[in-house]
Amino acid sequence: MNADDFILLREEAKNHLVNELLPFWLTRMQDDVNGGFITHFDKDGNDTGEDEKSLIAQTRCLYTLSSAHHAGYGDGDLADLAKHGFEFMINKMWDHEYGGFFWMLDRKGKVKIDQKIIYGHSFAIYSLSEYTLATGDPRGQEYAGKVFNLIQQFGSDTMYGGYREMFHRNWMLCGPGSQGGDRKTLDVHMHLMEAFTTLYECTGEDVHRRKLLEVIDLLNNHIIHPVYKTGIPQFCKDWTVAPQIKFDIIWGWDRFSEEGMKGNATDNTCYGHNVEFVWLFIHALEVLNIDPISYSSLFKTILDHTVENGIDYEYGGVYVEGPHSGGVYDREKEFWQQAEVLIGLLDGIIMFDDQKYGDAYKNVHRFVFDKVINKGIGEWYPLISRRGDPIWTHMGNSWKTNYHTVRSMIQSIKRIDKILSLK
Amino acid sequence: MNADDFILLREEAKNHLVNELLPFWLTRMQDDVNGGFITHFDKDGNDTGEDEKSLIAQTRCLYTLSSAHHAGYGDGDLADLAKHGFEFMINKMWDHEYGGFFWMLDRKGKVKIDQKIIYGHSFAIYSLSEYTLATGDPRGQEYAGKVFNLIQQFGSDTMYGGYREMFHRNWMLCGPGSQGGDRKTLDVHMHLMEAFTTLYECTGEDVHRRKLLEVIDLLNNHIIHPVYKTGIPQFCKDWTVAPQIKFDIIWGWDRFSEEGMKGNATDNTCYGHNVEFVWLFIHALEVLNIDPISYSSLFKTILDHTVENGIDYEYGGVYVEGPHSGGVYDREKEFWQQAEVLIGLLDGIIMFDDQKYGDAYKNVHRFVFDKVINKGIGEWYPLISRRGDPIWTHMGNSWKTNYHTVRSMIQSIKRIDKILSLK
Repeated sequence: MNADDFILLREEAKNHLVNELLPFWLTRMQDDVNGGFITHFDKDGNDTGEDEKSLIAQTRCLYTLSSAHHAGYGDGDLADLAKHGFEFMINKMWDHEYGGFFWMLDRKGKVKIDQKIIYGHSFAIYSLSEYTLATGDPRGQEYAGKVFNLIQQFGSDTMYGGYREMFHRNWMLCGPGSQGGDRKTLDVHMHLMEAFTTLYECTGEDVHRRKLLEVIDLLNNHIIHPVYKTGIPQFCKDWTVAPQIKFDIIWGWDRFSEEGMKGNATDNTCYGHNVEFVWLFIHALEVLNIDPISYSSLFKTILDHTVENGIDYEYGGVYVEGPHSGGVYDREKEFWQQAEVLIGLLDGIIMFDDQKYGDAYKNVHRFVFDKVINKGIGEWYPLISRRGDPIWTHMGNSWKTNYHTVRSMIQSIKRIDKILSLK
Repeated sequence: MNADDFILLREEAKNHLVNELLPFWLTRMQDDVNGGFITHFDKDGNDTGEDEKSLIAQTRCLYTLSSAHHAGYGDGDLADLAKHGFEFMINKMWDHEYGGFFWMLDRKGKVKIDQKIIYGHSFAIYSLSEYTLATGDPRGQEYAGKVFNLIQQFGSDTMYGGYREMFHRNWMLCGPGSQGGDRKTLDVHMHLMEAFTTLYECTGEDVHRRKLLEVIDLLNNHIIHPVYKTGIPQFCKDWTVAPQIKFDIIWGWDRFSEEGMKGNATDNTCYGHNVEFVWLFIHALEVLNIDPISYSSLFKTILDHTVENGIDYEYGGVYVEGPHSGGVYDREKEFWQQAEVLIGLLDGIIMFDDQKYGDAYKNVHRFVFDKVINKGIGEWYPLISRRGDPIWTHMGNSWKTNYHTVRSMIQSIKRIDKILSLK
């Protein structure tokens, strides 16, 4: 692609961000009655009334608003709304008895699920740190530090390394199997890398740097496939690969059989996670002041795996998942994978200046703008058929908010600016 | 040995404890002027005036007094003196800015070395928990919990497992080599097992149990020799065996060359540590309510290694150290190794009812009472020649107090009572 191509793609992204995505949320998400954010919207953008405020959705909304303000959008409105959400988090979601954030409240702030889930706490650290970076309010950093300490205290596995992930309210480890107490996941450890990156960016503290470097080592030594460098979703506590199962506490989009099993449960990798890992890792290295070029062959291996297996060159976009050695199992399209692959492919273009990453980026970008965005509403359909027809159509719920979509646009615009500055 | 033999040995131990050891310390250790404990005494039991109060000595004295009161000695005087020492620890040694205890103060309480050393903090947890168990003062448990949390937060290595050991005042990890920031040791991990055992006994908290089980796994999977089950002193952070070096911050008795190197630096095991590990591990299992018999073959292997290599059947007592596969390098006798081997051999007698452990116990007991105890003074010489002549003669300093000697007598009496009840 030449500079003109990138300028057009950038304009499309910026217009979507400023005139569609941010207004969609700004006009709907503030809960004036109960505090915090309303996050459940149907395909027409109407509040579904679902009586839930999830840790995931509240923290992700806080991140979105903070990061968009931080990136220069919103003329201060986003920071004000971020503060509104922050107050709800520390006043209603924080457990003053045992520490940490509850997993699920109702809209009024009454606790529905009191478990302490590290996945949610990784987003707490990420969003609270970004909130302080964006607004200067020191309370975000203070609570991010508290959560970091709780994760070290209760989560760190001092025998095998890494973190335990599922706890009861009092931080007793959950049982095995679907309770998740005996599992370690790519998801949690990758998002802890993401969280510790922004925490360290915010605090500059030695211990935050050190534990960020350790989780990077964990991802590289245990969690990505030794040969293909693709992400492995689930492990036993000793890092032997575990068959991918559904947990009682769900946090995302993975679809399972009635029995809670995943097809190809031990040979399954997800393109969106793999490319998200690339760009989050590059960002972590930049914050750590380590030149990402030292890992360039790793990044190329991972990006090539997705470009060669995960991109749908017929109908556009990124597939869901496939085997580590190549091929595809699931040809549907999940919104968040499109969002993350856009950012990672732009990093690939910056690092390698390789035409195939440009082609893949343009492919996914077009699929997003032509098929994934719910036209006239402004947010993305969560699940789309291979050909581009919406399967799930809600615009928001406890697991889908604005984190992937808004971040994808902000980060893409930044990267295209960098590409244009290099041309 | 028959019951009469054990009764005589028990009386000898009890007389030494009640009429010599405890009075030695009770009449000397209270610093009425500055608070805390005076711990520097020459061969005649006179205060040397050394202007130091070390974290090791203060915590070990607190442990000694608390545990002796807990075991029924002292008619309350020991508890009063324990409280006196506890107040000094939290008022003078605790770092209110960064948390944790300073490594070294002068007698008045001014900080001389402000580093945060995990070895010392393991004794803080151990003594503070025992203080609460003994006296009911909840502040001991409170501070033990704080130290536990700091160790998890700053010390836990989430990549390789285990704990980093040497920190600056602000908990920044120390540099490599003699600063110790890149090392992991048997000493620290064994004493963390000891500390977490008493902490869990005190609090009953799930996280204390969990991390105790993890450190037990670490000791069994990384720190003892895969074949001989003997302790390996030093490791790199990834658990490869490291040549044994001297650290800038010293905490014990190991003797090194002028260059800070140990003879046989990579094939060296210490009988005292090995047998101490056995009895501390058995005690941990009992507190965890796990039957120690499930590890009996491990215990037998370790005890037999010391009985066959470490006991001096000519002059009596336990040698210092030797190769893992058997043999002896250093035939001198350190006081603490005698103390710990007495306890572990009695556990061997209880578990295996094997004559050779009885013979070895009697041998070491006689050596202690005939050669190691400073007659008329009441404490033990720290270092003795093979034949039993004192080499070092101080009765106390920053590294030698009453922890090994008093504990050895208390624990031996308990075990002999158990043996007699089984006969």
